[in-house]
Amino acid sequence: MENVYIGVDLGGTNLRVGIVDENGRILQVKQIATEADQGYELIIERMTNLIKEVKKAYSAVSIGIGSPGPLNPFDGIVVSPPNLPGWKDVPITAMVEEAIGIPAYLVNDADAAALGEALYGGGKDRESTFYITVSTGVGGGYVQSNRLMQGEHGYSAEIGNMIIQPGGQKHANMNAGSLEALASGTSIAREGKARLGKTLGAEDVFQLAEEENEEALAIIEEAVDALAIGIANLVHTVDPSVFILGGGVMQAKDMILPMLRKKVDAYVYEGLRGKIAIEPVQLHDKAGIIGAAMHGRQKFDDEKLKRE
Amino acid sequence: MENVYIGVDLGGTNLRVGIVDENGRILQVKQIATEADQGYELIIERMTNLIKEVKKAYSAVSIGIGSPGPLNPFDGIVVSPPNLPGWKDVPITAMVEEAIGIPAYLVNDADAAALGEALYGGGKDRESTFYITVSTGVGGGYVQSNRLMQGEHGYSAEIGNMIIQPGGQKHANMNAGSLEALASGTSIAREGKARLGKTLGAEDVFQLAEEENEEALAIIEEAVDALAIGIANLVHTVDPSVFILGGGVMQAKDMILPMLRKKVDAYVYEGLRGKIAIEPVQLHDKAGIIGAAMHGRQKFDDEKLKRE
Repeated sequence: MENVYIGVDLGGTNLRVGIVDENGRILQVKQIATEADQGYELIIERMTNLIKEVKKAYSAVSIGIGSPGPLNPFDGIVVSPPNLPGWKDVPITAMVEEAIGIPAYLVNDADAAALGEALYGGGKDRESTFYITVSTGVGGGYVQSNRLMQGEHGYSAEIGNMIIQPGGQKHANMNAGSLEALASGTSIAREGKARLGKTLGAEDVFQLAEEENEEALAIIEEAVDALAIGIANLVHTVDPSVFILGGGVMQAKDMILPMLRKKVDAYVYEGLRGKIAIEPVQLHDKAGIIGAAMHGRQKFDDEKLKRE
Repeated sequence: MENVYIGVDLGGTNLRVGIVDENGRILQVKQIATEADQGYELIIERMTNLIKEVKKAYSAVSIGIGSPGPLNPFDGIVVSPPNLPGWKDVPITAMVEEAIGIPAYLVNDADAAALGEALYGGGKDRESTFYITVSTGVGGGYVQSNRLMQGEHGYSAEIGNMIIQPGGQKHANMNAGSLEALASGTSIAREGKARLGKTLGAEDVFQLAEEENEEALAIIEEAVDALAIGIANLVHTVDPSVFILGGGVMQAKDMILPMLRKKVDAYVYEGLRGKIAIEPVQLHDKAGIIGAAMHGRQKFDDEKLKRE
């Protein structure tokens, strides 16, 4: 039987389990509603049932679980994600390992998507990939030489909390003037409501901007400017081979990307202008499952090497 | 004969050449004045003469040259450093290789110091080190798993150009409100002159702050605050194991470090408070020679592996 790797994409709304082959192809995927309010024991039980179901026909080596943060990827503990209410210090990898009997590894959901895109999507064959997701929040993942860089405490690429405008807009538990407070879908909707006088979603603000509403255009431009400052700071920190942008807000990529590239060019050293690659995601919602599976595979191989 | 590695520290004022053994110990070092105004041909000739002199008693494998930027480390070209006037696209590694007959490699001077500190100084035995030098300017170097991360275009850790305060203070060819414009020795001196009514160096501002001059204290606090924002952004980008701080301004480390650690704690996620390691350099002016030599050694070994 072919060796395969299980990837789990645990979201606040949906829970998906996939079988991924050694070339990053999804062979099978199952999806159910997470129903997060039913508590973690039941959700993990349903997760392990799904895993048992999909792995029947395969020789599964490892399980990678992508989950919303905050989490401790090294100890396999989901700390207390805002969109998994009631979860508090859940030892998810230990629970899944006990139920399934093969090693499980935990990874931040944005990190999982980053690894998927870096290995098989927009970052394929590049030395390093900085993945950015702009959605309700702003998250990221940084992949160097095909490996996720997680950082000393697992806080690498937590770019939503980068300070863009000291003393600026407050948002959730983040720094004043954070990237998430200025460039997320939530922040675009907040400005839409404040400045356009209606309760609007981010997508409505984009729609009005398409129709050349000046205030809507100004809101989008300010958000893109904050994102450009964040990206320029990342260039002057890690200078990745490519930035890969995804998330719900990037559905407006035709409007955002040209504006963003121009602004980034204005914020980097002269020698870099025209050279910063900023591209959209290629794998979309598959990136999380593929990346989680491949992260599990890499961690399993690392541990095997150490044992040998 | 023992294998050794030559490290060159090419500065605007002094030129130093050292012999470094495989444990990072400097066995011998020679220093002369750079006399940058005499043109690059003469300086490189004097550099190669020094190299010939120190290498006589050893079996030298490679040469690493640390130089002020901008430079192209991959092609071995010094582009146009402000403190090496008249240097323009100088192919320094080719010139040195031709004169000496062993491979030479070019590296940004802050990157060289970062690698030296990471391998044998404050970052020894840590998974990753972010080195920051606060001097006339602000520079840095990022070392992961004992290797310098240089980035796709060689602009990794060019943190002086990070934007801290959009639309803020202009400085040199950098972004408005850049870290260098707000936290360098130059910026402290600029504020001293503007707000204390005298022509002062950064060290005088620190002296007045020691004497509890309120305006001087405010200037230092603002500079340290900008540095803290920069460090918090690096935490949320690469989450290094340790920050190592050096450069002339850090002579006031007894005043700066406690203030800086407190401010950084206020700008990072709650789960990180009290956990961010920020330490002073250990190797001081030796870091550049040791790091340049070790960078040359690593690059030479990489190329050897590829040939085999």
